[in-house]
Amino acid sequence: MRTGARRRMGVEERRQQLIGVALELFSRRSPDEVSLDEIASAAGISRPLVYHYFPGKLSLYEAALKQASDDLANRFVESREGPLGARLLRMTHRFFDFVDEHGPGFSELMGGGPAVGSSRTNALVEGVRQAAYVQILSHLDVDTAPARLELVIRSWISLAESTALLWLDGRRIPRDELELQLVHDFAALTAVSAAQDADMAALFRKMLADEPREGPFSDLVGHLVSLADA
Amino acid sequence: MRTGARRRMGVEERRQQLIGVALELFSRRSPDEVSLDEIASAAGISRPLVYHYFPGKLSLYEAALKQASDDLANRFVESREGPLGARLLRMTHRFFDFVDEHGPGFSELMGGGPAVGSSRTNALVEGVRQAAYVQILSHLDVDTAPARLELVIRSWISLAESTALLWLDGRRIPRDELELQLVHDFAALTAVSAAQDADMAALFRKMLADEPREGPFSDLVGHLVSLADA
Repeated sequence: MRTGARRRMGVEERRQQLIGVALELFSRRSPDEVSLDEIASAAGISRPLVYHYFPGKLSLYEAALKQASDDLANRFVESREGPLGARLLRMTHRFFDFVDEHGPGFSELMGGGPAVGSSRTNALVEGVRQAAYVQILSHLDVDTAPARLELVIRSWISLAESTALLWLDGRRIPRDELELQLVHDFAALTAVSAAQDADMAALFRKMLADEPREGPFSDLVGHLVSLADA
Repeated sequence: MRTGARRRMGVEERRQQLIGVALELFSRRSPDEVSLDEIASAAGISRPLVYHYFPGKLSLYEAALKQASDDLANRFVESREGPLGARLLRMTHRFFDFVDEHGPGFSELMGGGPAVGSSRTNALVEGVRQAAYVQILSHLDVDTAPARLELVIRSWISLAESTALLWLDGRRIPRDELELQLVHDFAALTAVSAAQDADMAALFRKMLADEPREGPFSDLVGHLVSLADA
């Protein structure tokens, strides 16, 4: 069976199969702990044959990361319909889906494990951050972000990463609570910036104006006001 | 002169000199762009002699990073006197001093440049984060943090890192504004968590209760309430 399958598979098809097998293994254990032997065995081919498709484990890792990065970047694409808070919540939900599906691989990559740190892997991670940044910017109806807005968005992206990493470490807080919290964090970071800058204040007011009373942003404002009054 | 100085220096003294020279060069240009030849030349010794003290550039880089990490960790130490907002602001100010002094080296390290990514450098970075975490926890008078508080503190530390990295990239926002903003961000992240959790709400109220009217926390609450009313 295996020999037959091997004969029939073209180079690109075999590469895709190996990438799929690697991603599947990395979703259950850290890439650092998964050997090339294991990947070969799970794909039903010999280790030497893997080298025919990838020069080594790093190269296969990078190809798998490329595919996962493209997948994640696509999950940030969100239609520009409805209130911003709800859109951000859907994006955040799909981000956590991804983190959930790729747990150990995500931890290893973002936590700076031993398998990572090449300039190519860094560029892929930066590419995903940039994709998220561009998407969020487009939802705010801003073409070129002033420095303070860029800071808020990029800070929030790093907050989403660190929140997801801490969630993976024991899953001690329910995922849906963290997703809502991140959307609240976005509003809070914007509000903090708005407290110091008139343009950010105008943007913040516009964000809130379009929110429904039962949306995640208005929800938060009510809570903050009652905390401040207490 | 140089030969004379070389003869007189002991091994540890010479190592310290090379670390100092390397940190000085890394404060002006990315470690990736600084060659071992340059470090040797700035120290007034030959490149082969550098190998007598460090087996290679990575080893010297790691020793320099160890020294810088210890330095940074010490800057988080803050006396437990006065209101929390003011303490956090002083810690944040010293953190930005460090970032200012080590600009290109900090960017390279935290931005995942090509010179970094070894498990030893990652452990040093994690050690500094842990030092900051333990310090902040002690200022909140909490021994063992519940998961939500740990998330807020660690999230804020990653926010401080990403804010500093973005500041270094063009310095488009005044440093003192960002320091105050980060202290506000700490209050905001705590408030967001407090909106969902009774223990965090109790902690947040305790934080605010001790703040003077003119402190950074109370300042922010006033701004948020007026933003919400607008």
